[in-house]
Amino acid sequence: MPVNRRVILKSRPSGIPQAEHFDIVETPLPDLSDRQFLVRNEFLSVEPAMRGWVSAVANYATPVGIGETMRSFSAGTVIASRHSGYAEGDRVMGMLGWQHYAVSDGSNVTRKVMESDLPLSLSLGVLGLNGVTAYFALLELGLPRPGDTVVVSTAAGSVGSAVGQIAKLMGCRTVGITGGATKVKMCRDEFGYDEAIDYKAGDVAAALKAACPRGIDVYFDNTAGSISDAVLAQLAVGARIVICGTASVASWDPPPQGPRVERHMLVKRARMSGFLVFDYAHRYEEAVGRLASWVRDGKLRYREDILDGIEHAPGAIAELYRGENLGKRLIRV
Amino acid sequence: MPVNRRVILKSRPSGIPQAEHFDIVETPLPDLSDRQFLVRNEFLSVEPAMRGWVSAVANYATPVGIGETMRSFSAGTVIASRHSGYAEGDRVMGMLGWQHYAVSDGSNVTRKVMESDLPLSLSLGVLGLNGVTAYFALLELGLPRPGDTVVVSTAAGSVGSAVGQIAKLMGCRTVGITGGATKVKMCRDEFGYDEAIDYKAGDVAAALKAACPRGIDVYFDNTAGSISDAVLAQLAVGARIVICGTASVASWDPPPQGPRVERHMLVKRARMSGFLVFDYAHRYEEAVGRLASWVRDGKLRYREDILDGIEHAPGAIAELYRGENLGKRLIRV
Repeated sequence: MPVNRRVILKSRPSGIPQAEHFDIVETPLPDLSDRQFLVRNEFLSVEPAMRGWVSAVANYATPVGIGETMRSFSAGTVIASRHSGYAEGDRVMGMLGWQHYAVSDGSNVTRKVMESDLPLSLSLGVLGLNGVTAYFALLELGLPRPGDTVVVSTAAGSVGSAVGQIAKLMGCRTVGITGGATKVKMCRDEFGYDEAIDYKAGDVAAALKAACPRGIDVYFDNTAGSISDAVLAQLAVGARIVICGTASVASWDPPPQGPRVERHMLVKRARMSGFLVFDYAHRYEEAVGRLASWVRDGKLRYREDILDGIEHAPGAIAELYRGENLGKRLIRV
Repeated sequence: MPVNRRVILKSRPSGIPQAEHFDIVETPLPDLSDRQFLVRNEFLSVEPAMRGWVSAVANYATPVGIGETMRSFSAGTVIASRHSGYAEGDRVMGMLGWQHYAVSDGSNVTRKVMESDLPLSLSLGVLGLNGVTAYFALLELGLPRPGDTVVVSTAAGSVGSAVGQIAKLMGCRTVGITGGATKVKMCRDEFGYDEAIDYKAGDVAAALKAACPRGIDVYFDNTAGSISDAVLAQLAVGARIVICGTASVASWDPPPQGPRVERHMLVKRARMSGFLVFDYAHRYEEAVGRLASWVRDGKLRYREDILDGIEHAPGAIAELYRGENLGKRLIRV
């Protein structure tokens, strides 16, 4: 029986988890019980949300315990099964953890990956939580209409890049905000944004004013910081703001201060909505079906940034928050 | 021909308009032209929104010019007419200004007041913009459901008191926030709130926690200050926040700072919406019809706070912001 390598939580971070908060350990694999199966993980996902999963502050779910395998989405292939619903060779994606092997009874499997013509890794990115988040958050809460100006923060990220392209498919004018010349070029050349703004390069408010002369109809936000403050001051009447992440905030305890939003909301009769992808779990396949067909037709592009070896996992969350990745960050194991 | 007494804007306030920003002048009434009619105003309205109408900062409409009659809703009776649509004795409500007499061509009339069995003054309060605001803002944006906990700031005010009672009619549990023991008593005894919190008396967060053990499903806000900060920290999943006014903010230039709202919005999948009653102008009669029938049935109570004489008008906006009125503030002329 092979040995399982896994990343465990060593200590609880107060802000963004760093490499030092994790350990890599080796443990023997247990025998399979009845109604269990064994998955050989091939890709481990790295997400901004993982910060919340290890935080002591109440979030959506119980935090990962000290000494436990780090919770993560992973994708792999069933290599042994005593479960009638899963056969050897099935490709699965789910909460399989930062580890080489996962024993599962199916309860932590998000879905079987049926897109056999497409790379398995996509099930963790553009056809995974990132793409599904982009799809529902934009379409259900952002309510884009043809001709709308849609501004996306973290525009080159795995969620943001899909949001920009789906908005474009809806006939919107898209403006991406991202950091650095490389990502600006990616936004323009790969993800088809009409305009891309480098927030590190100068006055975001002035750049937005130039890029959005009729105001901003939809703001898709992953940052919750000064970029949002600049956007909210330039909303169009009836604007929709989708809150999908808070990447620019290092700690919410105590909550950081910012300019009050009420007057913008009132004068522009704007709507701000928070999005959690798990609320749309029952419609996952609807989104994946659409996203996959756009990928096959070349209408939805994606970028992956894959590191080889589980030893890259512990530092990967912090790298994500520093914006070091270009594309969906995955660990191949 | 009688002389018209009117309140004109003397100078432009930077914050809340005070008595010193206005003058009272007397001018002769002009002869009526064809398609004009003359209204003898009986009641002049005083609204928080009037601050915006005299502000130099772009709001919804062109600001009132220096030397011009102060814009206001007023209600009165047609006493002379050369307009086929308006006859002597018709009761009207509209943007007729802070003055004894208004010459109109009908374009500034909001509606004819058809509820002949009810006092004309109600057309400026519970059956006017205040009631219509409460009706649409709560029902269209707050989306109350039976069993929801609905928290209302400025709970004893002319909008808030109607919101609390309509929420109660919807089967909600209602919690009012107001200032001072007299208004707390009004909230409980007159407006039927299940709980009333005096924000001047102590820890609003602790009082909310006691009054809303399952969290807050709907927050109807007229304040945009520290009360909101306390409420947002106690939202229930799926909460709706209606931004209807910003009474606690003396100036938006520069915008005051407050704790960032994004994490609350995200974790609770909450929705915050700004409301402007003029967006519902085409449905005004729908709301007035419902409100009037609730008033007749004793299901919707209101309170008026009427001052006699136009000389009370100039200081009335500031008094409103100081919370000195008990009920809808009107000037009888």
